[in-house]
Amino acid sequence: MPLVVHKYGGSSVADAEKIQGVARRIADVSQKGTGVVAVVSAMGDSTDELIELAHSVSQKPHPREMDLLLSTGEVVSCTLLTMALADLGLEAVSLTGSQAGIHTDTSHGRALIHSVDTARMLKELKEGRVVVVAGFQGINEDNDITTLGRGGSDTTAVALAVALGADRCEIYTDVDGIYTADPRIVPEARKLTEIDYDEMLELANYGAKMHPRSIELGAFYNVPIYVASSFNQTPGTLIHNIPNNANANEVQMENRIKATGIACTTNVAKITVRSVPDQPGVAAALFEPLAQSGISVDTIVQNTSEDRTTDISFTVSGTDLPAAIAKVEELSKELGAGDLISEGGLAAVSVVGSGMQHIPGYASRMFRVLADGNVNIDMITTSEIRISCIIREEQAQEAIRLLHRGFQLDEPDPVD
Amino acid sequence: MPLVVHKYGGSSVADAEKIQGVARRIADVSQKGTGVVAVVSAMGDSTDELIELAHSVSQKPHPREMDLLLSTGEVVSCTLLTMALADLGLEAVSLTGSQAGIHTDTSHGRALIHSVDTARMLKELKEGRVVVVAGFQGINEDNDITTLGRGGSDTTAVALAVALGADRCEIYTDVDGIYTADPRIVPEARKLTEIDYDEMLELANYGAKMHPRSIELGAFYNVPIYVASSFNQTPGTLIHNIPNNANANEVQMENRIKATGIACTTNVAKITVRSVPDQPGVAAALFEPLAQSGISVDTIVQNTSEDRTTDISFTVSGTDLPAAIAKVEELSKELGAGDLISEGGLAAVSVVGSGMQHIPGYASRMFRVLADGNVNIDMITTSEIRISCIIREEQAQEAIRLLHRGFQLDEPDPVD
Repeated sequence: MPLVVHKYGGSSVADAEKIQGVARRIADVSQKGTGVVAVVSAMGDSTDELIELAHSVSQKPHPREMDLLLSTGEVVSCTLLTMALADLGLEAVSLTGSQAGIHTDTSHGRALIHSVDTARMLKELKEGRVVVVAGFQGINEDNDITTLGRGGSDTTAVALAVALGADRCEIYTDVDGIYTADPRIVPEARKLTEIDYDEMLELANYGAKMHPRSIELGAFYNVPIYVASSFNQTPGTLIHNIPNNANANEVQMENRIKATGIACTTNVAKITVRSVPDQPGVAAALFEPLAQSGISVDTIVQNTSEDRTTDISFTVSGTDLPAAIAKVEELSKELGAGDLISEGGLAAVSVVGSGMQHIPGYASRMFRVLADGNVNIDMITTSEIRISCIIREEQAQEAIRLLHRGFQLDEPDPVD
Repeated sequence: MPLVVHKYGGSSVADAEKIQGVARRIADVSQKGTGVVAVVSAMGDSTDELIELAHSVSQKPHPREMDLLLSTGEVVSCTLLTMALADLGLEAVSLTGSQAGIHTDTSHGRALIHSVDTARMLKELKEGRVVVVAGFQGINEDNDITTLGRGGSDTTAVALAVALGADRCEIYTDVDGIYTADPRIVPEARKLTEIDYDEMLELANYGAKMHPRSIELGAFYNVPIYVASSFNQTPGTLIHNIPNNANANEVQMENRIKATGIACTTNVAKITVRSVPDQPGVAAALFEPLAQSGISVDTIVQNTSEDRTTDISFTVSGTDLPAAIAKVEELSKELGAGDLISEGGLAAVSVVGSGMQHIPGYASRMFRVLADGNVNIDMITTSEIRISCIIREEQAQEAIRLLHRGFQLDEPDPVD
C-alpha cells in the first residue's frame, strides 16, 4: 500500500471548519487506498497563547515545564482532527509524540529526534486506520516530553516519512508553495515548481517559513517534500534532488545558473569584539561558551589584523542580544580583548541559487543592486549557494524587491 | 519525612494569580519539611471549553479522542503550578497521569484506576522535589490516555495518597468544608468538623461536590481526607473513621443519632416498565444491557405484583434518558413486557446519617416534613444510613430547606 505523510500547519487547523476541511482532504486520499499519517501543528495562535499564559504565571518559565505545556497545543488539534475523520466514516487514531514513538535528546525547547519507534503507527496503519500525530514533540530517555522548537512539526513530518519509508512527505500550509521571494513583499514573486534540497535549506535558514531541520532530514534520506496549500488544489513546489549532471536536460542546466530565490531574516543583531589577541583557540574560547549558554550564533566575520590583534563580528537573534552581550563581556575580559560594540535592528538578505559561486559576477551584482538602492551593507558572508548581506532592518523589504528585480526573478523561466 | 497529597480544584487554579497563591500554600508546607504531591484539576471552565470545542468539530466525539483531548486541561494547569513553584525557589516537577504511573482500565471517560507505579514520584520526592500531578487521567494497557470522569481528580489524589502511604489527603476547593446542606440553598447550613466515610459517601453520591470513588478509596484504605478552602485558612472538614463503639465519648454518641446532612441530585429522570413478567432473571435481562451501554442506573424500585407481572421503575441521569428509553424499548419487547413510561425533571433529596435506620421514626419524619411542604414523593429508597425521595426538580431547593430545618440541622451540636 502506498503511504504518504501529510503535515498541516496551525493556520490550516485554526478552527472547527478548517479542521473538517483537512479531514475531507485526508479522506479523499485515504479512500483511494493510500495510507495516511497526518502530522498537525497547534491550532492557529494557540502556541502563542500558551506561552503568554506561562509568562503570566512565571517570569522565567522552566524549560521542562514549558515543553510539557506547549505539547498540549498539538494534542488538542490532533484529537479534533481524528474526531472529524471519524465523522466522515474513517477509522482514525490520534497519537501524541510519545505514543508515536518519537524519541529525542534531552534539550528542552530545541530537542533533536534520535529515533522513531514505528511499532504503534505500523500497527494502526495495518488495521486500516489513518494515524494523526501531534507534531513538534517527542519524549526523552527520562520519559519527559520535549519539543523540537518553533516550526518543529515540519521536522516531525519528515522524520516520520523517513522512519515509515513513506513515498513522500506533503506539507500543507497557508501558502501554496515556495516562491522566489515572499509574495507579500514582492508581488511579482513567482512560485517554483521544484527546488533542490540545498537551495531550499538556504531559503529556510534565511527566512522561508519552513523548519530547516526538516529539509536537512529530507535531503539526507532523499525523501521528496511537497509544499502546497491546504485551502485549494493549486499545484505546489516539490523539494527533491534535482539532477545536475551531463544527463540533465538543457532546460534544467539553464535553470541552474539563475538565482532561485531571495530570503530574508529580520530581528538580527550584531556584536563586534575589538582587539582580540590573534592566536589559535581564541574563536573557540569565544563561541563555545556562547553555544553552551544556548545562544545561537549565525554569521561570523573575522577581519584581517594589522597588529597582533583582530576584530571578530558575529550576528545573533535580537532576542538573544542582552544575554549574548553579558556573556561576551565576561569572555572578552578573560581573553584580554578590547571594546565590545553591539547593534540591533538589522536584517540578513540572501540570494540563493545552486552553482552561483561558480558564475563570476554574482556577488558583485548583489552589491551593485544594493548600492544603487542606497542600501548600506554591514557584513557579507557567502556559502556555496548563497550570498548574504547584513543591512538595516528598515531597508529589508526594499532590498528584497531590488534584488528580486536585479536577479531577474520576476521574469518567467524559459520552461515555466 | 511526613508526606501529604494536596488536591486543588479548577476554581483554585482558575487564573495566574490563583495559581501563584496555590504555589505559596504548597511552599509553606514544603519548607517546613513535609513532602508534597499536588494533584490539580484543569483551570476554571477549561474542561467545558474543550468539550465545546470537540462538539464544534464532531457531533459525537470519539471517546478515546475525547479523553486525550480533555487530559490536556490538567497538563496545562499542572505545568503552570510547577513554574510558579520554581519561581518561589522550590524544586518542582510536573507529571502527567501517565508519567505519575497511574494505570487504569480501558473504559474511556470513566476509567477505573488499576494500580499506581510510584517509582517516578518516589524518585522525585527523594530528590527533594514537590511533585505536581495532572489529575483526572491515567494510561491504559494499550498506552492510551484515559480519564476518570468529571471530578476524577479527587480520586487521583486519594489513590496517590494510598499508593505513596501519605499521612493524609487534603482536598482544597472553593468551599471550606462539608456542610449539613448546600449553603447556597440553605443559608443556616453548618460546617461539619468531621464526618464518617460512609456518610460522606452517601452525601457525595447524592449531591455533595466530591467524586464518590475518592471516598470509597479513602474508606477502604483508611486514608484521612481533609476538605478545606484553597482561598483561606478556615478549618475544614475531616473525613475519617469515627469510632462508634462503647469507648467513644458521649458527645460523639449523641452526635451519631442525629442526621448528618441533606444532599440533593438534580437532572434525574425516571423510567417505568409496566407488566414485566415476574420471573427469575428478568431484572438482570433489563439492567445488564443498560450497564453495557454505559448508562448508569441509580435508584431501582420493583413494586409487588398482583398478577404474575410486576412494574419496575428506575432512575437515570436526565442526560442519559433518550439513550435509556431507546434501549429499554428494545429490551421490554424481548421480555414481553408492557408499556414504558418516562419522566424527566426530577430530583433526589436525601437525608444522611449513621445509624439513622436504627432510630424509629426517621423515615416517617422525612415524609411528614415533605408532606407538610406540599412536596409530592414519587419514589423512595433507603440505605443503612440514607433515606432518599425522588421529587419534582422545581421543588428540590424548598425540600432541602424544609428537611434541614425538620431534622434540626440548623441547631448547633452540643460540642460545636
